[in-house]
Amino acid sequence: METITAGQYYLVYNALSFTIATMAAATLFFWIGRSQVAPAYKTALTITGLVTFIAGYHYFRMFESWSDAYTVTNGVVEVTGARFVAEYRYVDWLLTVPLLLIELILVMRLTRSETVSKSITLGGAAALMIVLGYPGEVSGGIDGTRFLWGALSMIPFLYIVYTLFVGLSKAIESQPASVRGLVSLARYVTVFSWFFYPIVYFAPFVLPVDGGGATTIIEVGYTIADIVAKAGFGVLIFLIAVRKSEEETVAA
Amino acid sequence: METITAGQYYLVYNALSFTIATMAAATLFFWIGRSQVAPAYKTALTITGLVTFIAGYHYFRMFESWSDAYTVTNGVVEVTGARFVAEYRYVDWLLTVPLLLIELILVMRLTRSETVSKSITLGGAAALMIVLGYPGEVSGGIDGTRFLWGALSMIPFLYIVYTLFVGLSKAIESQPASVRGLVSLARYVTVFSWFFYPIVYFAPFVLPVDGGGATTIIEVGYTIADIVAKAGFGVLIFLIAVRKSEEETVAA
Repeated sequence: METITAGQYYLVYNALSFTIATMAAATLFFWIGRSQVAPAYKTALTITGLVTFIAGYHYFRMFESWSDAYTVTNGVVEVTGARFVAEYRYVDWLLTVPLLLIELILVMRLTRSETVSKSITLGGAAALMIVLGYPGEVSGGIDGTRFLWGALSMIPFLYIVYTLFVGLSKAIESQPASVRGLVSLARYVTVFSWFFYPIVYFAPFVLPVDGGGATTIIEVGYTIADIVAKAGFGVLIFLIAVRKSEEETVAA
Repeated sequence: METITAGQYYLVYNALSFTIATMAAATLFFWIGRSQVAPAYKTALTITGLVTFIAGYHYFRMFESWSDAYTVTNGVVEVTGARFVAEYRYVDWLLTVPLLLIELILVMRLTRSETVSKSITLGGAAALMIVLGYPGEVSGGIDGTRFLWGALSMIPFLYIVYTLFVGLSKAIESQPASVRGLVSLARYVTVFSWFFYPIVYFAPFVLPVDGGGATTIIEVGYTIADIVAKAGFGVLIFLIAVRKSEEETVAA
Protein backbone atom coordinates (compact mmCIF):
# COMPACT_ATOMS: atom_id res chain seq x y z
CA MET A 1 0.00 0.00 0.00
CA GLU A 2 1.42 3.39 -0.96
CA THR A 3 2.45 5.84 1.75
CA ILE A 4 0.46 8.97 2.35
CA THR A 5 1.08 12.05 4.45
CA ALA A 6 -0.70 12.73 7.73
CA GLY A 7 -2.49 15.64 6.03
CA GLN A 8 -3.81 13.38 3.29
CA TYR A 9 -4.78 10.69 5.80
CA TYR A 10 -6.86 13.06 7.90
CA LEU A 11 -8.43 14.77 4.89
CA VAL A 12 -9.89 11.46 3.71
CA TYR A 13 -10.71 10.43 7.31
CA ASN A 14 -12.69 13.62 7.93
CA ALA A 15 -14.37 13.54 4.52
CA LEU A 16 -15.62 9.99 5.21
CA SER A 17 -16.91 10.92 8.67
CA PHE A 18 -18.59 14.07 7.31
CA THR A 19 -20.39 11.90 4.77
CA ILE A 20 -21.64 9.41 7.38
CA ALA A 21 -23.31 12.36 9.17
CA THR A 22 -24.64 13.85 5.92
CA MET A 23 -26.14 10.59 4.66
CA ALA A 24 -27.72 9.75 8.03
CA ALA A 25 -29.24 13.23 8.31
CA ALA A 26 -30.49 13.14 4.71
CA THR A 27 -32.11 9.74 5.28
CA LEU A 28 -34.02 10.98 8.31
CA PHE A 29 -35.05 14.16 6.47
CA PHE A 30 -36.54 12.21 3.54
CA TRP A 31 -38.34 9.64 5.68
CA ILE A 32 -39.72 12.15 8.14
CA GLY A 33 -40.82 14.37 5.22
CA ARG A 34 -42.57 11.44 3.58
CA SER A 35 -45.71 12.14 5.63
CA GLN A 36 -46.03 15.58 3.95
CA VAL A 37 -46.51 14.33 0.39
CA ALA A 38 -49.45 12.79 -1.46
CA PRO A 39 -49.64 8.96 -1.65
CA ALA A 40 -48.44 9.00 -5.27
CA TYR A 41 -45.04 10.37 -4.20
CA LYS A 42 -44.46 8.38 -1.03
CA THR A 43 -42.55 5.56 -2.74
CA ALA A 44 -40.26 8.12 -4.42
CA LEU A 45 -39.32 9.52 -0.99
CA THR A 46 -38.96 6.05 0.53
CA ILE A 47 -36.41 5.24 -2.19
CA THR A 48 -34.68 8.64 -1.87
CA GLY A 49 -34.08 7.82 1.80
CA LEU A 50 -32.97 4.27 0.97
CA VAL A 51 -30.25 5.64 -1.32
CA THR A 52 -28.76 7.81 1.43
CA PHE A 53 -29.27 5.00 4.00
CA ILE A 54 -27.31 2.53 1.85
CA ALA A 55 -24.62 5.16 1.19
CA GLY A 56 -24.39 5.91 4.94
CA TYR A 57 -23.82 2.20 5.64
CA HIS A 58 -21.01 2.04 3.08
CA TYR A 59 -19.37 5.26 4.31
CA PHE A 60 -19.37 3.78 7.81
CA ARG A 61 -17.66 0.64 6.46
CA MET A 62 -15.14 2.72 4.47
CA PHE A 63 -14.37 4.85 7.52
CA GLU A 64 -13.66 1.72 9.57
CA SER A 65 -11.59 0.20 6.76
CA TRP A 66 -9.59 3.44 6.30
CA SER A 67 -8.88 3.59 10.06
CA ASP A 68 -7.74 -0.06 10.02
CA ALA A 69 -5.41 0.43 7.06
CA TYR A 70 -3.15 3.06 8.68
CA THR A 71 -1.79 4.03 12.07
CA VAL A 72 -0.76 7.60 12.79
CA THR A 73 1.76 8.01 15.60
CA ASN A 74 3.18 11.45 16.38
CA GLY A 75 2.23 12.65 12.92
CA VAL A 76 3.85 9.72 11.08
CA VAL A 77 1.54 7.55 8.97
CA GLU A 78 2.33 3.86 8.69
CA VAL A 79 0.47 1.15 6.84
CA THR A 80 -0.81 -1.71 8.99
CA GLY A 81 -0.93 -4.29 6.19
CA ALA A 82 -4.73 -4.32 6.18
CA ARG A 83 -6.04 -3.11 2.85
CA PHE A 84 -8.45 -0.17 2.48
CA VAL A 85 -11.48 -1.83 0.88
CA ALA A 86 -12.14 0.66 -1.92
CA GLU A 87 -14.68 -1.73 -3.48
CA TYR A 88 -17.29 -0.56 -0.96
CA ARG A 89 -17.91 2.32 -3.35
CA TYR A 90 -18.78 0.00 -6.23
CA VAL A 91 -20.89 -2.22 -4.03
CA ASP A 92 -22.71 0.94 -2.95
CA TRP A 93 -23.18 2.31 -6.45
CA LEU A 94 -24.46 -1.02 -7.75
CA LEU A 95 -27.41 -0.58 -5.40
CA THR A 96 -27.82 3.19 -5.23
CA VAL A 97 -27.29 4.39 -8.81
CA PRO A 98 -30.20 2.39 -10.30
CA LEU A 99 -32.34 3.54 -7.33
CA LEU A 100 -31.41 7.20 -7.98
CA LEU A 101 -32.75 6.96 -11.52
CA ILE A 102 -35.87 5.18 -10.28
CA GLU A 103 -36.62 7.97 -7.77
CA LEU A 104 -36.46 10.53 -10.60
CA ILE A 105 -38.79 8.41 -12.73
CA LEU A 106 -41.22 7.90 -9.82
CA VAL A 107 -41.46 11.57 -8.93
CA MET A 108 -42.26 12.39 -12.59
CA ARG A 109 -45.33 10.16 -12.26
CA LEU A 110 -45.35 8.76 -15.78
CA THR A 111 -47.85 6.12 -16.91
CA ARG A 112 -47.44 2.71 -15.26
CA SER A 113 -45.94 1.07 -18.37
CA GLU A 114 -43.52 3.97 -18.95
CA THR A 115 -42.47 3.85 -15.29
CA VAL A 116 -41.71 0.12 -15.54
CA SER A 117 -39.92 0.30 -18.91
CA LYS A 118 -37.82 3.38 -18.01
CA SER A 119 -36.91 1.88 -14.62
CA ILE A 120 -35.72 -1.32 -16.25
CA THR A 121 -33.73 0.27 -19.10
CA LEU A 122 -32.17 3.14 -17.09
CA GLY A 123 -31.67 1.04 -13.94
CA GLY A 124 -30.15 -1.78 -15.99
CA ALA A 125 -27.82 0.59 -17.86
CA ALA A 126 -26.72 2.10 -14.52
CA ALA A 127 -25.93 -1.35 -13.08
CA LEU A 128 -23.96 -2.24 -16.24
CA MET A 129 -22.01 1.03 -15.98
CA ILE A 130 -20.94 0.17 -12.41
CA VAL A 131 -20.06 -3.45 -13.20
CA LEU A 132 -17.85 -2.32 -16.12
CA GLY A 133 -16.01 0.28 -14.04
CA TYR A 134 -15.22 -2.14 -11.23
CA PRO A 135 -12.41 -4.23 -12.83
CA GLY A 136 -10.56 -1.04 -13.77
CA GLU A 137 -10.80 0.41 -10.27
CA VAL A 138 -9.63 -2.74 -8.47
CA SER A 139 -6.80 -3.43 -10.92
CA GLY A 140 -4.81 -1.06 -8.69
CA GLY A 141 -2.64 0.53 -11.37
CA ILE A 142 -2.97 3.77 -13.31
CA ASP A 143 -2.59 1.91 -16.58
CA GLY A 144 -4.24 0.41 -19.66
CA THR A 145 -6.53 -1.87 -17.63
CA ARG A 146 -7.98 1.07 -15.71
CA PHE A 147 -8.37 3.00 -18.94
CA LEU A 148 -10.04 0.19 -20.92
CA TRP A 149 -12.72 -0.65 -18.34
CA GLY A 150 -13.33 3.02 -17.67
CA ALA A 151 -13.90 3.60 -21.38
CA LEU A 152 -16.31 0.64 -21.61
CA SER A 153 -18.21 1.95 -18.61
CA MET A 154 -18.72 5.26 -20.44
CA ILE A 155 -20.96 3.56 -23.04
CA PRO A 156 -23.93 2.91 -20.68
CA PHE A 157 -23.09 6.24 -18.97
CA LEU A 158 -23.58 8.16 -22.20
CA TYR A 159 -26.72 6.16 -22.97
CA ILE A 160 -28.19 7.30 -19.61
CA VAL A 161 -27.25 10.94 -20.25
CA TYR A 162 -28.80 10.72 -23.73
CA THR A 163 -32.01 9.18 -22.34
CA LEU A 164 -32.30 11.83 -19.61
CA PHE A 165 -31.97 14.64 -22.16
CA VAL A 166 -33.69 13.28 -25.23
CA GLY A 167 -35.80 10.31 -24.15
CA LEU A 168 -37.34 12.09 -21.16
CA SER A 169 -37.75 15.56 -22.69
CA LYS A 170 -41.37 14.93 -23.71
CA ALA A 171 -42.19 13.63 -20.23
CA ILE A 172 -40.66 16.76 -18.70
CA GLU A 173 -42.78 19.00 -20.90
CA SER A 174 -45.88 17.24 -19.58
CA GLN A 175 -44.99 18.09 -15.94
CA PRO A 176 -47.01 20.87 -14.22
CA ALA A 177 -45.51 24.28 -15.04
CA SER A 178 -44.59 24.96 -11.39
CA VAL A 179 -42.23 21.96 -11.16
CA ARG A 180 -40.95 21.83 -14.74
CA GLY A 181 -37.93 23.93 -13.77
CA LEU A 182 -37.19 21.72 -10.73
CA VAL A 183 -37.50 18.47 -12.69
CA SER A 184 -35.22 19.85 -15.37
CA LEU A 185 -32.78 20.97 -12.65
CA ALA A 186 -32.85 17.46 -11.11
CA ARG A 187 -31.87 16.16 -14.55
CA TYR A 188 -28.96 18.63 -14.77
CA VAL A 189 -27.82 17.81 -11.24
CA THR A 190 -27.84 14.12 -12.15
CA VAL A 191 -25.72 14.65 -15.23
CA PHE A 192 -23.44 17.25 -13.63
CA SER A 193 -22.79 15.20 -10.48
CA TRP A 194 -22.42 12.01 -12.48
CA PHE A 195 -19.75 13.54 -14.74
CA PHE A 196 -17.73 13.96 -11.55
CA TYR A 197 -17.27 10.18 -11.33
CA PRO A 198 -15.51 9.63 -14.68
CA ILE A 199 -13.48 12.81 -14.08
CA VAL A 200 -12.27 11.41 -10.73
CA TYR A 201 -11.76 7.98 -12.28
CA PHE A 202 -9.52 9.34 -15.05
CA ALA A 203 -7.91 12.18 -13.01
CA PRO A 204 -4.82 10.16 -11.96
CA PHE A 205 -3.92 9.78 -15.65
CA VAL A 206 -3.47 13.50 -16.17
CA LEU A 207 -2.57 14.94 -12.75
CA PRO A 208 1.09 14.92 -11.69
CA VAL A 209 0.46 13.15 -8.36
CA ASP A 210 2.05 10.20 -6.57
CA GLY A 211 0.26 7.21 -5.00
CA GLY A 212 -0.90 8.95 -1.83
CA GLY A 213 -2.01 12.04 -3.72
CA ALA A 214 -3.93 9.95 -6.25
CA THR A 215 -5.70 8.01 -3.48
CA THR A 216 -6.64 11.26 -1.73
CA ILE A 217 -8.00 12.83 -4.92
CA ILE A 218 -10.02 9.71 -5.74
CA GLU A 219 -11.50 9.32 -2.25
CA VAL A 220 -12.33 12.98 -1.65
CA GLY A 221 -13.57 13.46 -5.22
CA TYR A 222 -15.96 10.49 -5.10
CA THR A 223 -17.15 11.65 -1.68
CA ILE A 224 -18.13 15.11 -2.96
CA ALA A 225 -19.83 13.55 -5.99
CA ASP A 226 -21.79 11.16 -3.73
CA ILE A 227 -23.03 13.98 -1.50
CA VAL A 228 -24.28 16.03 -4.47
CA ALA A 229 -25.74 13.07 -6.38
CA LYS A 230 -27.51 11.45 -3.41
CA ALA A 231 -28.29 13.98 -0.66
CA GLY A 232 -28.41 17.11 -2.85
CA PHE A 233 -30.37 15.38 -5.61
CA GLY A 234 -32.69 13.93 -2.96
CA VAL A 235 -33.57 17.40 -1.69
CA LEU A 236 -34.72 18.30 -5.23
CA ILE A 237 -36.84 15.14 -5.39
CA PHE A 238 -38.37 16.12 -2.03
CA LEU A 239 -39.17 19.66 -3.26
CA ILE A 240 -40.77 18.32 -6.45
CA ALA A 241 -42.86 15.84 -4.46
CA VAL A 242 -44.04 18.52 -2.00
CA ARG A 243 -44.93 21.02 -4.73
CA LYS A 244 -46.78 18.49 -6.88
CA SER A 245 -48.67 17.25 -3.80
CA GLU A 246 -49.81 20.80 -2.97
CA GLU A 247 -51.04 21.47 -6.50
CA GLU A 248 -52.87 18.19 -6.81
CA THR A 249 -54.61 18.76 -3.47
CA VAL A 250 -55.76 22.19 -4.64
CA ALA A 251 -56.91 20.80 -7.99
CA ALA A 252 -58.87 17.92 -6.41
CA MET B 1 -9.84 -24.97 6.38
CA GLU B 2 -8.85 -24.81 2.74
CA THR B 3 -6.75 -21.91 1.45
CA ILE B 4 -8.27 -19.30 -0.79
CA THR B 5 -6.83 -16.46 -2.84
CA ALA B 6 -7.13 -12.79 -1.88
CA GLY B 7 -9.41 -12.30 -4.90
CA GLN B 8 -11.75 -15.07 -3.71
CA TYR B 9 -11.65 -13.78 -0.13
CA TYR B 10 -12.66 -10.25 -1.14
CA LEU B 11 -15.29 -11.42 -3.60
CA VAL B 12 -17.12 -13.27 -0.81
CA TYR B 13 -16.41 -10.42 1.65
CA ASN B 14 -17.92 -7.83 -0.67
CA ALA B 15 -20.85 -10.05 -1.62
CA LEU B 16 -21.72 -10.53 2.07
CA SER B 17 -21.46 -6.79 2.81
CA PHE B 18 -23.51 -5.95 -0.29
CA THR B 19 -26.21 -8.28 0.97
CA ILE B 20 -26.29 -6.74 4.46
CA ALA B 21 -27.00 -3.38 2.79
CA THR B 22 -29.55 -4.88 0.40
CA MET B 23 -31.48 -6.73 3.10
CA ALA B 24 -31.50 -3.74 5.47
CA ALA B 25 -32.70 -1.43 2.68
CA ALA B 26 -35.33 -3.93 1.55
CA THR B 27 -36.64 -4.34 5.12
CA LEU B 28 -37.07 -0.60 5.54
CA PHE B 29 -38.69 -0.33 2.10
CA PHE B 30 -41.31 -2.99 2.95
CA TRP B 31 -42.08 -1.67 6.42
CA ILE B 32 -42.24 1.98 5.36
CA GLY B 33 -44.36 0.98 2.34
CA ARG B 34 -46.74 -0.93 4.63
CA SER B 35 -48.63 2.32 5.30
CA GLN B 36 -49.53 2.50 1.59
CA VAL B 37 -51.56 -0.75 1.42
CA ALA B 38 -55.03 -1.78 2.55
CA PRO B 39 -55.36 -3.50 5.96
CA ALA B 40 -55.83 -6.91 4.30
CA TYR B 41 -52.26 -6.78 2.93
CA LYS B 42 -50.43 -5.26 5.87
CA THR B 43 -49.49 -8.64 7.39
CA ALA B 44 -48.08 -9.80 4.04
CA LEU B 45 -45.76 -6.76 4.01
CA THR B 46 -44.85 -7.17 7.67
CA ILE B 47 -43.70 -10.72 6.89
CA THR B 48 -41.96 -9.66 3.68
CA GLY B 49 -39.89 -7.25 5.77
CA LEU B 50 -39.30 -9.90 8.45
CA VAL B 51 -37.77 -12.21 5.86
CA THR B 52 -35.22 -9.60 4.73
CA PHE B 53 -34.66 -8.49 8.34
CA ILE B 54 -33.81 -12.06 9.43
CA ALA B 55 -31.61 -12.49 6.35
CA GLY B 56 -29.83 -9.18 7.09
CA TYR B 57 -29.08 -10.39 10.62
CA HIS B 58 -27.60 -13.64 9.33
CA TYR B 59 -25.57 -11.90 6.62
CA PHE B 60 -24.14 -9.63 9.31
CA ARG B 61 -23.17 -12.73 11.32
CA MET B 62 -21.68 -14.42 8.24
CA PHE B 63 -19.71 -11.29 7.36
CA GLU B 64 -18.23 -11.20 10.89
CA SER B 65 -17.51 -14.94 10.81
CA TRP B 66 -15.88 -14.67 7.37
CA SER B 67 -13.68 -11.76 8.55
CA ASP B 68 -12.69 -13.74 11.65
CA ALA B 69 -11.77 -16.87 9.69
CA TYR B 70 -9.04 -15.23 7.59
CA THR B 71 -6.48 -12.48 7.85
CA VAL B 72 -5.22 -10.68 4.77
CA THR B 73 -1.85 -9.00 5.20
CA ASN B 74 -0.26 -7.32 2.21
CA GLY B 75 -2.43 -9.38 -0.13
CA VAL B 76 -1.66 -12.77 1.45
CA VAL B 77 -4.61 -14.71 2.91
CA GLU B 78 -4.03 -16.86 5.97
CA VAL B 79 -6.49 -18.91 7.98
CA THR B 80 -6.80 -17.88 11.61
CA GLY B 81 -8.07 -21.23 12.85
CA ALA B 82 -11.55 -19.85 13.51
CA ARG B 83 -14.11 -21.65 11.37
CA PHE B 84 -16.45 -19.82 8.98
CA VAL B 85 -19.89 -20.70 10.35
CA ALA B 86 -21.65 -21.66 7.13
CA GLU B 87 -24.64 -23.04 9.08
CA TYR B 88 -25.94 -19.49 9.48
CA ARG B 89 -27.47 -19.97 6.04
CA TYR B 90 -29.51 -22.99 7.16
CA VAL B 91 -30.58 -21.31 10.38
CA ASP B 92 -31.69 -18.39 8.21
CA TRP B 93 -33.56 -20.52 5.68
CA LEU B 94 -35.32 -22.51 8.39
CA LEU B 95 -37.02 -19.24 9.40
CA THR B 96 -37.25 -17.37 6.13
CA VAL B 97 -38.21 -19.99 3.55
CA PRO B 98 -41.52 -20.96 5.21
CA LEU B 99 -42.22 -17.22 5.71
CA LEU B 100 -41.55 -16.54 2.01
CA LEU B 101 -44.25 -19.01 1.02
CA ILE B 102 -46.62 -17.58 3.62
CA GLU B 103 -46.19 -14.03 2.24
CA LEU B 104 -47.15 -15.28 -1.22
CA ILE B 105 -50.21 -17.04 0.21
CA LEU B 106 -51.22 -13.95 2.23
CA VAL B 107 -50.98 -11.53 -0.67
CA MET B 108 -53.20 -13.83 -2.76
CA ARG B 109 -55.91 -13.36 -0.11
CA LEU B 110 -57.41 -16.83 -0.31
CA THR B 111 -60.23 -17.97 1.98
CA ARG B 112 -59.25 -18.22 5.64
CA SER B 113 -59.23 -22.04 5.66
CA GLU B 114 -57.17 -22.21 2.45
CA THR B 115 -54.71 -19.68 3.86
CA VAL B 116 -54.20 -21.80 6.98
CA SER B 117 -53.95 -25.16 5.19
CA LYS B 118 -51.60 -23.91 2.45
CA SER B 119 -49.41 -22.14 5.01
CA ILE B 120 -49.07 -25.34 7.04
CA THR B 121 -48.40 -27.72 4.15
CA LEU B 122 -46.12 -25.43 2.12
CA GLY B 123 -44.40 -23.95 5.17
CA GLY B 124 -43.91 -27.40 6.67
CA ALA B 125 -42.53 -28.83 3.42
CA ALA B 126 -40.11 -25.87 3.22
CA ALA B 127 -38.86 -26.47 6.76
CA LEU B 128 -38.40 -30.20 6.02
CA MET B 129 -36.45 -29.31 2.85
CA ILE B 130 -34.00 -27.18 4.87
CA VAL B 131 -33.60 -29.75 7.66
CA LEU B 132 -32.79 -32.48 5.13
CA GLY B 133 -30.22 -30.36 3.27
CA TYR B 134 -28.36 -29.41 6.44
CA PRO B 135 -26.49 -32.69 7.23
CA GLY B 136 -25.16 -32.78 3.66
CA GLU B 137 -23.90 -29.20 3.77
CA VAL B 138 -22.10 -29.53 7.11
CA SER B 139 -20.55 -32.91 6.29
CA GLY B 140 -17.80 -30.81 4.72
CA GLY B 141 -16.90 -33.14 1.87
CA ILE B 142 -17.97 -33.26 -1.76
CA ASP B 143 -19.03 -36.87 -1.37
CA GLY B 144 -21.83 -39.40 -0.95
CA THR B 145 -23.11 -37.84 2.28
CA ARG B 146 -23.58 -34.45 0.62
CA PHE B 147 -25.24 -36.13 -2.34
CA LEU B 148 -27.64 -38.32 -0.31
CA TRP B 149 -29.03 -35.56 1.92
CA GLY B 150 -29.23 -33.20 -1.04
CA ALA B 151 -31.28 -35.76 -2.94
CA LEU B 152 -33.62 -36.31 0.04
CA SER B 153 -34.08 -32.55 0.35
CA MET B 154 -35.24 -32.43 -3.27
CA ILE B 155 -38.40 -34.41 -2.39
CA PRO B 156 -40.13 -31.63 -0.40
CA PHE B 157 -38.59 -29.11 -2.85
CA LEU B 158 -40.33 -30.75 -5.80
CA TYR B 159 -43.56 -31.03 -3.79
CA ILE B 160 -43.46 -27.23 -3.25
CA VAL B 161 -42.80 -26.54 -6.94
CA TYR B 162 -45.65 -28.87 -7.87
CA THR B 163 -48.02 -27.16 -5.42
CA LEU B 164 -47.10 -23.69 -6.67
CA PHE B 165 -47.79 -24.65 -10.27
CA VAL B 166 -50.68 -27.09 -10.00
CA GLY B 167 -52.21 -26.64 -6.54
CA LEU B 168 -52.31 -22.85 -6.71
CA SER B 169 -53.24 -22.45 -10.39
CA LYS B 170 -56.97 -22.17 -9.64
CA ALA B 171 -56.29 -19.58 -6.93
CA ILE B 172 -54.23 -17.55 -9.37
CA GLU B 173 -57.04 -17.54 -11.93
CA SER B 174 -59.33 -16.05 -9.28
CA GLN B 175 -56.99 -13.05 -8.75
CA PRO B 176 -58.04 -9.64 -10.21
CA ALA B 177 -56.97 -9.39 -13.85
CA SER B 178 -54.58 -6.49 -13.13
CA VAL B 179 -52.40 -8.51 -10.76
CA ARG B 180 -52.72 -11.99 -12.29
CA GLY B 181 -49.53 -11.42 -14.30
CA LEU B 182 -47.64 -10.21 -11.22
CA VAL B 183 -48.82 -13.11 -9.03
CA SER B 184 -47.83 -15.57 -11.74
CA LEU B 185 -44.46 -13.79 -12.06
CA ALA B 186 -43.97 -14.07 -8.28
CA ARG B 187 -44.55 -17.82 -8.60
CA TYR B 188 -41.98 -18.07 -11.42
CA VAL B 189 -39.45 -15.97 -9.45
CA THR B 190 -39.92 -18.32 -6.50
CA VAL B 191 -39.28 -21.43 -8.55
CA PHE B 192 -36.49 -19.87 -10.65
CA SER B 193 -34.62 -18.45 -7.66
CA TRP B 194 -35.17 -21.60 -5.61
CA PHE B 195 -33.67 -23.81 -8.33
CA PHE B 196 -30.51 -21.80 -7.80
CA TYR B 197 -30.06 -23.41 -4.36
CA PRO B 198 -29.86 -27.07 -5.47
CA ILE B 199 -27.73 -25.98 -8.45
CA VAL B 200 -25.26 -24.31 -6.08
CA TYR B 201 -25.47 -27.27 -3.66
CA PHE B 202 -24.57 -29.79 -6.35
CA ALA B 203 -22.23 -27.53 -8.38
CA PRO B 204 -19.01 -28.70 -6.64
CA PHE B 205 -19.74 -32.25 -7.91
CA VAL B 206 -19.46 -31.24 -11.54
CA LEU B 207 -17.20 -28.15 -11.63
CA PRO B 208 -13.42 -28.64 -11.77
CA VAL B 209 -12.66 -26.41 -8.78
CA ASP B 210 -10.51 -26.78 -5.68
CA GLY B 211 -11.54 -26.05 -2.08
CA GLY B 212 -11.27 -22.26 -2.22
CA GLY B 213 -13.01 -22.11 -5.59
CA ALA B 214 -15.83 -24.37 -4.37
CA THR B 215 -16.33 -22.25 -1.24
CA THR B 216 -16.43 -19.07 -3.33
CA ILE B 217 -18.96 -20.50 -5.78
CA ILE B 218 -21.19 -21.75 -2.96
CA GLU B 219 -21.10 -18.50 -0.97
CA VAL B 220 -21.56 -16.13 -3.90
CA GLY B 221 -24.16 -18.38 -5.53
CA TYR B 222 -26.31 -18.67 -2.41
CA THR B 223 -25.97 -14.91 -1.88
CA ILE B 224 -27.32 -14.09 -5.35
CA ALA B 225 -30.15 -16.59 -4.86
CA ASP B 226 -31.04 -15.04 -1.48
CA ILE B 227 -31.17 -11.52 -2.94
CA VAL B 228 -33.51 -12.59 -5.75
CA ALA B 229 -35.67 -14.87 -3.59
CA LYS B 230 -36.06 -12.47 -0.66
CA ALA B 231 -35.57 -8.82 -1.72
CA GLY B 232 -36.53 -9.20 -5.40
CA PHE B 233 -39.50 -11.45 -4.60
CA GLY B 234 -40.51 -9.01 -1.84
CA VAL B 235 -40.71 -6.13 -4.32
CA LEU B 236 -43.19 -8.18 -6.35
CA ILE B 237 -45.25 -8.86 -3.21
CA PHE B 238 -45.19 -5.10 -2.49
CA LEU B 239 -46.36 -4.25 -6.03
CA ILE B 240 -49.16 -6.82 -5.85
CA ALA B 241 -50.29 -5.47 -2.47
CA VAL B 242 -50.26 -1.84 -3.67
CA ARG B 243 -52.14 -2.62 -6.87
CA LYS B 244 -54.79 -4.75 -5.17
CA SER B 245 -55.23 -2.06 -2.49
CA GLU B 246 -55.80 0.61 -5.16
CA GLU B 247 -58.40 -1.48 -6.97
CA GLU B 248 -60.27 -2.43 -3.83
CA THR B 249 -60.38 1.21 -2.70
CA VAL B 250 -61.83 2.24 -6.08
CA ALA B 251 -64.35 -0.62 -6.03
CA ALA B 252 -65.52 0.15 -2.47
